[in-house]
Amino acid sequence: MLDFSFQNPTRIHFGEGQIAAISQEIPLDARVLLVYGGGSIKSNGVYQQVVSALNKHTWFEFSGIEPNPSYDTLMKAQKIIKAHSIDYILAVGGGSVVDGAKFIAAATLFDGNDPWNILAKQQTITQALPIGAVLTLPATGSESNGNSVVTRDGNKLPFSSPLVRPLFAVLDPKVTLSLSDRQIGNGVVDAFVHTIEQYLTYSVNGKVQDRFSEGLLQTLIEEGPKALEPATKENLEVRANIMWSATMALNGLIGAGVPQDWSTHMIGHELTGAFGIDHARTLSIVLPAVMKVCRDKKREKLLQYASRVWQLTEGDDDTRIDQAILLTEQFFTKMQVPTRLSDVDLGIKDIDLLIKRLEEHGMTALGEHGDITLDKSREILIQAL
Amino acid sequence: MLDFSFQNPTRIHFGEGQIAAISQEIPLDARVLLVYGGGSIKSNGVYQQVVSALNKHTWFEFSGIEPNPSYDTLMKAQKIIKAHSIDYILAVGGGSVVDGAKFIAAATLFDGNDPWNILAKQQTITQALPIGAVLTLPATGSESNGNSVVTRDGNKLPFSSPLVRPLFAVLDPKVTLSLSDRQIGNGVVDAFVHTIEQYLTYSVNGKVQDRFSEGLLQTLIEEGPKALEPATKENLEVRANIMWSATMALNGLIGAGVPQDWSTHMIGHELTGAFGIDHARTLSIVLPAVMKVCRDKKREKLLQYASRVWQLTEGDDDTRIDQAILLTEQFFTKMQVPTRLSDVDLGIKDIDLLIKRLEEHGMTALGEHGDITLDKSREILIQAL
Repeated sequence: MLDFSFQNPTRIHFGEGQIAAISQEIPLDARVLLVYGGGSIKSNGVYQQVVSALNKHTWFEFSGIEPNPSYDTLMKAQKIIKAHSIDYILAVGGGSVVDGAKFIAAATLFDGNDPWNILAKQQTITQALPIGAVLTLPATGSESNGNSVVTRDGNKLPFSSPLVRPLFAVLDPKVTLSLSDRQIGNGVVDAFVHTIEQYLTYSVNGKVQDRFSEGLLQTLIEEGPKALEPATKENLEVRANIMWSATMALNGLIGAGVPQDWSTHMIGHELTGAFGIDHARTLSIVLPAVMKVCRDKKREKLLQYASRVWQLTEGDDDTRIDQAILLTEQFFTKMQVPTRLSDVDLGIKDIDLLIKRLEEHGMTALGEHGDITLDKSREILIQAL
Repeated sequence: MLDFSFQNPTRIHFGEGQIAAISQEIPLDARVLLVYGGGSIKSNGVYQQVVSALNKHTWFEFSGIEPNPSYDTLMKAQKIIKAHSIDYILAVGGGSVVDGAKFIAAATLFDGNDPWNILAKQQTITQALPIGAVLTLPATGSESNGNSVVTRDGNKLPFSSPLVRPLFAVLDPKVTLSLSDRQIGNGVVDAFVHTIEQYLTYSVNGKVQDRFSEGLLQTLIEEGPKALEPATKENLEVRANIMWSATMALNGLIGAGVPQDWSTHMIGHELTGAFGIDHARTLSIVLPAVMKVCRDKKREKLLQYASRVWQLTEGDDDTRIDQAILLTEQFFTKMQVPTRLSDVDLGIKDIDLLIKRLEEHGMTALGEHGDITLDKSREILIQAL
């Protein structure tokens, strides 16, 4: 096991009706900005529950945060924050809304010249408005971590700070019943790949971390498809297991003390930035190719993955690795996401642009060994054709 | 899955040499009371590391906290706290020292008449001194939870508050190399039974919680005996896996959203209170008997335990349950702890006193169903003879 420091102070309220808890969580004298996306929270009853819980608070709202939240949209919130002396941000939505809330919270109190530098120059933030989150789409884990990704001019840029980790998060599985199949499939795949990025590297004998990761992977494999099948898609236990898995997949715990990869994410971000492909769908395209191209360096963990996650015991080592990769692709297909660039109408002609973007963003030494060069990324993208 | 609220803000510093982190964790203007036990930290180098890390702080010390820390000992700390205006407690030791530090921290700022009522009348505390912990014995999980057990006149009484959860905990597996075999065996069994109390109940389809628990149980089963075997007992990876398992076993995570039992602990506490048996050794005696007596109500989970933790696939259901219980006992024996009352020279004549104590302490409806009456506890103790 590697040395680590780990803390996750986000208070989780999990279960049906827990949205009411925000009335206790946010100080009564706070001036709250409720931020959300395109308005789906108004049709599924979440907005009304939030408004009801805030009936003793002073609050304002800012909507229109899009998937892959854009810098320009988020900066528009500053006007309302200044006009109303906002001092608390309540994010209601999926990972994009929570990510957006984090940037808004950091930009408001940024003491540098230009909030863009939080992303562009990775300037450290020293303060941020407090944030609470009501999660409507289990996927990114953003509700209890300090990570955010913001897009500007086709560039997806991350920043991270414990100062923007939500103080509390409400996870009500019932609110996920109104999600589309596409949102469910994307969310399950996102959580699955988050886990893989922290697991499928090389062994440091972190037995707890490995088994926790394997438990999340198995749960997502079992429960994910049920959330798409007509007979089981309304089952709240299925939704609860998916929701808790997605939070645990990226709250810092399973990655503490073990190597991490994240090459699938970094290559995937360029697919979203350049071609607008949904985040999770970039992951389901890139991950199988990463498994194949990095097969030798990941060999020990691929065998463990084959055995513990997929219960593969027959055949020699290479056969089991092949099968595990194939089963991963089949799981993605069950979740109705693509596994090849050709599935999203991209081809070999598009790879040059992706490599150029990776280079521009300094993504020249990816993976747990830092040995995924631009040439290796090209190999991965060719493998994913 | 049951509804839950969960938060664990303790910052963990894990790895060799991490004791140095306390110099950053404790504010420089704090007046620190270093509390510890019998002085083993002076012979194993931990004391010197702590003193070195505190070289810029103002600190005092209070030693002599015994296993099953006593109320009378802990109250003696109040004099030094008042004399030196102490405002921060640093616990250096195992679970007993950390539990003791929690009571000291709560008693100092208790606004009731008598701190004894925190235990005797379960009076709520509204403030406590901040606590940090340097853990030397992986076992109780006290380093990152809000629980404490204090003993007075043979009565073990618990209290719990988020206010006494350590703000930070240092976990350096290397410091555990100086533990005796008895301490190691006790610690592994304590962590194992903590996990079982939150797992071996009835299913609410909490797939993440179940798999996390199973992962901890498997890790303790694999690594525990290695820490006692000459060839592997100095292996730091073994110690690291045990240490992280013990913390995760009782930090609130695996118990969030699932039913909990704790009957083994409650009956075990009376064995310690009445006869001075080490805490973990009461658990290894009581747990197999609880498994046998509550076999029907725990049937589904016993089968899951047999299959997932012990990989038992042969034979009918009852055979697999029998085998799982037997393997549990054999694991305890490997950890050099007793599994029967007769192993600690107790017999049927001693059961009346234990039942009387359970009654005095209101322990008349134990277990995840609240159906372990005094008669049922007697049956469990007879089973454990």
